[in-house]
Amino acid sequence: MRDIHLIPVSYYPSENLEFPLITAPQTITPNELFYVRNHFDYPKVDVDAWTLSIEGSVNRPIQFAYQHLKSMNTVTVPATLECAGNKRSLFEKKAQGNQFGLGAISHAEWTGVRLRDVLEQAGVSPNAKEIVFEGLDSGQRNDMDGRVFFERSLPLEKALHPDTLLALEMNGEPLSDKHGFPLRLVVPGFYAVASVKWLHRIRAVDQPFKGPFQSIDYVILNKPNDYKHAKPLSSVLINSSIASPTEEEELAVGTHVIYGYAWAGEQSIWKVEVSMDNGKHWADANILDPDVPYSWRRWSFDWNADKPGPYTIMSKATNDRGEAQPLKAKWNAKGYQNNSIHAVNVHVIDRKLVQNVLH
Amino acid sequence: MRDIHLIPVSYYPSENLEFPLITAPQTITPNELFYVRNHFDYPKVDVDAWTLSIEGSVNRPIQFAYQHLKSMNTVTVPATLECAGNKRSLFEKKAQGNQFGLGAISHAEWTGVRLRDVLEQAGVSPNAKEIVFEGLDSGQRNDMDGRVFFERSLPLEKALHPDTLLALEMNGEPLSDKHGFPLRLVVPGFYAVASVKWLHRIRAVDQPFKGPFQSIDYVILNKPNDYKHAKPLSSVLINSSIASPTEEEELAVGTHVIYGYAWAGEQSIWKVEVSMDNGKHWADANILDPDVPYSWRRWSFDWNADKPGPYTIMSKATNDRGEAQPLKAKWNAKGYQNNSIHAVNVHVIDRKLVQNVLH
Repeated sequence: MRDIHLIPVSYYPSENLEFPLITAPQTITPNELFYVRNHFDYPKVDVDAWTLSIEGSVNRPIQFAYQHLKSMNTVTVPATLECAGNKRSLFEKKAQGNQFGLGAISHAEWTGVRLRDVLEQAGVSPNAKEIVFEGLDSGQRNDMDGRVFFERSLPLEKALHPDTLLALEMNGEPLSDKHGFPLRLVVPGFYAVASVKWLHRIRAVDQPFKGPFQSIDYVILNKPNDYKHAKPLSSVLINSSIASPTEEEELAVGTHVIYGYAWAGEQSIWKVEVSMDNGKHWADANILDPDVPYSWRRWSFDWNADKPGPYTIMSKATNDRGEAQPLKAKWNAKGYQNNSIHAVNVHVIDRKLVQNVLH
Repeated sequence: MRDIHLIPVSYYPSENLEFPLITAPQTITPNELFYVRNHFDYPKVDVDAWTLSIEGSVNRPIQFAYQHLKSMNTVTVPATLECAGNKRSLFEKKAQGNQFGLGAISHAEWTGVRLRDVLEQAGVSPNAKEIVFEGLDSGQRNDMDGRVFFERSLPLEKALHPDTLLALEMNGEPLSDKHGFPLRLVVPGFYAVASVKWLHRIRAVDQPFKGPFQSIDYVILNKPNDYKHAKPLSSVLINSSIASPTEEEELAVGTHVIYGYAWAGEQSIWKVEVSMDNGKHWADANILDPDVPYSWRRWSFDWNADKPGPYTIMSKATNDRGEAQPLKAKWNAKGYQNNSIHAVNVHVIDRKLVQNVLH
């Protein structure tokens, strides 16, 4: 019996756990293996006292109880969520922050109320530029005084998109405590930092929002501390990962199935190519899953490894706009958006050498 | 509630799980967090049918049932077990095999029968040079045909040492299935590959043993496949790891406790030093545990991080022979015995920069 569970990356001050990509590939991540990214300790939530309040530049400030939200019309949207720091540890020059490997990404089907339905009830004022979302998770930051709540904003257009959800359920089950119960914003196609957990307050604001998780963290800095030239995250970039084989794995001579995932944020995957010779030649992988918006797709490739030696296997995805993964994503000081072509070094073992040693 | 558990490194073809060194440091590793290193799938063991047989160059071949072994005189020996591939992923030039981080090491108190007591009952012949140990774990290797059992040998001197145990218990509990139930050889001070799990057969041999886990794996190769110049593993080298902070961690200005472990195999730890400036200056760490043979020792150091900026923290242990960790351990093709001085890059965060951005 394999002891299949999340991969711990940090426990303190906040718990961060990766999805073990090395398990057999599955489109939908089981809830207990869905990656966990926190900025603070888990909040304690009393769902009977909890409300979702809509306030700020709105005509009719309003509060929703949990039962009220549950009684509203719901929709189900499948969406892959990827942490902007996924694959941070794969930058050659290290970048600061949790050293995530391949698994700060997972896929679920989210069921909830459309955000725009509750915004329409409140009546967002014409002056409003952004919508700010506050979670109940809070604590001390290492760069600020006092208690800070987790807050992020969305442009109005994305907030009003029919696929942007106030999610009550994840894969048909109520959200678990670790995944934002009772309510999580889910913003398909955006890096998962936008999908605020333990959501309890929504504010329409007339000015661009500048919270620390918007302007200090989750910004692209070409040099450390160069906040003057900080750029916001884009939506999720075209990307792919090889789940098997793994780095420095030793393989027998023979046929091996290379498999992995590819994802494209708000775009679609057009193709996935693999190379067995460090990028000299490329061949199309088989894409195993249908093209579903916001959803990663599993791919595989049968490799006849008939010659012993070292190999560098690569995967490269291209989206429907023709945008492909770069050989090397641009390094940035906080290590976000690493969508470099994924390269895995493996060794096909020479049986003759072994026979010579043993006999 | 933190979800504290082992760190998966591989599941197939064999399960390999690391101890999460990032938990608060503890001298004795709880059994459920003790690292797991396998070469094959877990064997199915029927303890009622199981016997330990002593054979080969002995005067009186003999078999022991589980109950018989349990009725013999037992001793308890604390011992840290370290996989020879621990810290393989920390070699700058990657080496083939499972990419273990810091956690292919754990510590337990082992209770069992002295190996020499059962060898004496069998009467090892004067011609015997080595003792070979066979586990019940078996399977296909990627470099050999047919089914192979896990086998390792010991020199006679180490086999007859009073601290070399046939362990029945680990931290006061019967061995678990994953840790070798019903019987595990425990060879304190040697890399843990010697401590054969699911032990069922012991053979005295007159010639040096050449099994694949002795002469193909677990040998030091200066070049890939250069088996002509292969050298066996030494006993466990002087070593230390920093458990906290972790690589690329972001820290507030203020006082931080640096902590970790140091171990010395068959020797003793003489001192542990830490550096906060990439090895320019060193200071003695506080060693928190007493000097117990074969046992790692926790250490800590209070660091007043009063200036923002990047820092490289290092730990260096020295044993009672004066042998210290090298700045860079010698790379070898299979990535064993990495005892480089452990270096961790961290960032002490400048609050002023953040205040300027937010206000």
